[in-house]
Amino acid sequence: MSYRNASVVITGGLGFIGSNLALRLAKEGAQVTIIDPLITGCGGNEHNVATIRDAIEVIPHDISETKRLAGAIRGAKVIFNLAGEISHIHSMEFPERDLLINTVAQLRFLQACVTYNPGVRVVYAGTRQVYGRPDYLPMDERHPVRPVDFNGVHKYAANMYHDMLSRSGQIDGIVLRLTNVYGPRMSLAIPCQGFLSTFLRLVLTGQNLEVFGDGRQLRDPIYVDDAVEAFVRAGLAATVEQRTINVGGPQALSLLDIAKTCARLAGDLTVSTRPFPEDRAMIDIGSYSTDTSQFERSFGWKPSITFEQGLAATLSYYRAELPHYLDPNDPRPNCGLPEHKGIQHRLLYSAV
Amino acid sequence: MSYRNASVVITGGLGFIGSNLALRLAKEGAQVTIIDPLITGCGGNEHNVATIRDAIEVIPHDISETKRLAGAIRGAKVIFNLAGEISHIHSMEFPERDLLINTVAQLRFLQACVTYNPGVRVVYAGTRQVYGRPDYLPMDERHPVRPVDFNGVHKYAANMYHDMLSRSGQIDGIVLRLTNVYGPRMSLAIPCQGFLSTFLRLVLTGQNLEVFGDGRQLRDPIYVDDAVEAFVRAGLAATVEQRTINVGGPQALSLLDIAKTCARLAGDLTVSTRPFPEDRAMIDIGSYSTDTSQFERSFGWKPSITFEQGLAATLSYYRAELPHYLDPNDPRPNCGLPEHKGIQHRLLYSAV
Repeated sequence: MSYRNASVVITGGLGFIGSNLALRLAKEGAQVTIIDPLITGCGGNEHNVATIRDAIEVIPHDISETKRLAGAIRGAKVIFNLAGEISHIHSMEFPERDLLINTVAQLRFLQACVTYNPGVRVVYAGTRQVYGRPDYLPMDERHPVRPVDFNGVHKYAANMYHDMLSRSGQIDGIVLRLTNVYGPRMSLAIPCQGFLSTFLRLVLTGQNLEVFGDGRQLRDPIYVDDAVEAFVRAGLAATVEQRTINVGGPQALSLLDIAKTCARLAGDLTVSTRPFPEDRAMIDIGSYSTDTSQFERSFGWKPSITFEQGLAATLSYYRAELPHYLDPNDPRPNCGLPEHKGIQHRLLYSAV
Repeated sequence: MSYRNASVVITGGLGFIGSNLALRLAKEGAQVTIIDPLITGCGGNEHNVATIRDAIEVIPHDISETKRLAGAIRGAKVIFNLAGEISHIHSMEFPERDLLINTVAQLRFLQACVTYNPGVRVVYAGTRQVYGRPDYLPMDERHPVRPVDFNGVHKYAANMYHDMLSRSGQIDGIVLRLTNVYGPRMSLAIPCQGFLSTFLRLVLTGQNLEVFGDGRQLRDPIYVDDAVEAFVRAGLAATVEQRTINVGGPQALSLLDIAKTCARLAGDLTVSTRPFPEDRAMIDIGSYSTDTSQFERSFGWKPSITFEQGLAATLSYYRAELPHYLDPNDPRPNCGLPEHKGIQHRLLYSAV
């Protein structure tokens, strides 16, 4: 089994993980079609695929515009479903926008998959955020789902769509619940996209770091090449025992350690701590680390790139490409969402 | 603590359980405001509250039209949130309609609760359907959530909204996960509203019953007066340890036994079995019975009305009121949803 000459679709393929996956699959000889309308705030960036732009197709439509996607869906061997909004902060400010992007659009897209390519393998980018505050660590897939923000609720609704349609054989879905992913092609220009994006933006522009709380909260960041490997393997797996599988990094590190490593590798910068702002405390989940044994059992592989290795490669990428990832003249109040080009924020409907 | 002179809001208050709750609370001296736009297919019926119509307020708007609801929400001591679509079959035919009614509208309504009456007690009518096919019985609240249809996904998303907003103190929510409820004021005119509605419609019009499968699947129907008592107690409870609580009936009975009891009490009718139609088999969950111990611990009470007692009272009600609950000239293909007055089926949104 391989991707050579296979047609694959990547929703959100101009985004961070999606574009890295596109580069990898193109290298393996796949026919890559990206579906990505570059919704403001979701991290898409045409520069991400600049080196393969002539070898791939990019459909600039939303995944909910399913009539325009029939051809791409019909021919696909695997659909990598990474379209979405990942920001917890955005979701608390604009819950309905998050519902549209992460749930409504997914419902329409999956219905189109059932119609145009019944039984197709769909690998969905889920999130550890659905678990909420852990009862125990490391986090396995049996842990209750208890999201602390609208993003978690809406991503979990999409997770359930994949599960439900898979149980009835209408698609052949796998949901990868990702921990914090970092690496080349992350958006650095958008505030509120997680601490790793923030840390990178600051150290790459020579600024010191601040960590909320005491900095002892654990995270297990995964380098994007490892995350991409997880998608690649899930896409090809012949049979699947469990359809929802956690994907975590190889080390559990404190936020303070992560910040210090960023500051050290980037240059002569400092790290300090400050109390949690109120709006962040509400959606903070404390420590997190992943039990990856289900993934290892299913796919015979586990992530191995250490944070220090991955971060060095990440900094090296951005040092060459930084202008494509920063927009320092655009401070983007409220992350720029209401005023910017992108999906409408209000669902329009009414009793008639 | 009592409801005397307390303002209460009941969303979906013209529907089956909502109207029975309105009658009970009006009797206890509460100031009852119902929010119900009578969406086609959701079971609302103005006749349900005919005997108290002059003593209550009815707001004929959708719960998503929050600007029209500010006054009612602002003054409420308790909000009973029963608005929704319960049909699993409808949800599989019109998933987006179900998403609108059960998730989008709930998001807007709960945001309005947070704005106009922060911290208000909200008692939400959840459903056992979110559990899907049981791993074990009786079903307790720790069982994984694994819905088998869109209705289950969307009701669970609303369940998660209540949980999430309660954990952060923005509302004081309780979710009652109801098993099959039966009794006076159920809609009998709408196909696809569950087997108890179907059985009642058939026996009340002198028709024999058919049970899908071998009829050995267990259900634990709860009489509506007992379900109403659960809402009444949840509304007044001072402190809540668990916010999601199963509500089930006092007996686990086979579908065949339930059908035979219906046929026997209604008259000289027969019961036969037939294989599951394909579209029903996909969303069948097998047997179900409720572990009600969490409810008993929380509220010091448990349902006790037997199926035979409840059914006798139900048949007696409908024998007097049947014309208000049947519409034999309206066969309603696809449950009449696309053509009838009611909420629009398509969400309107677009990338701009």
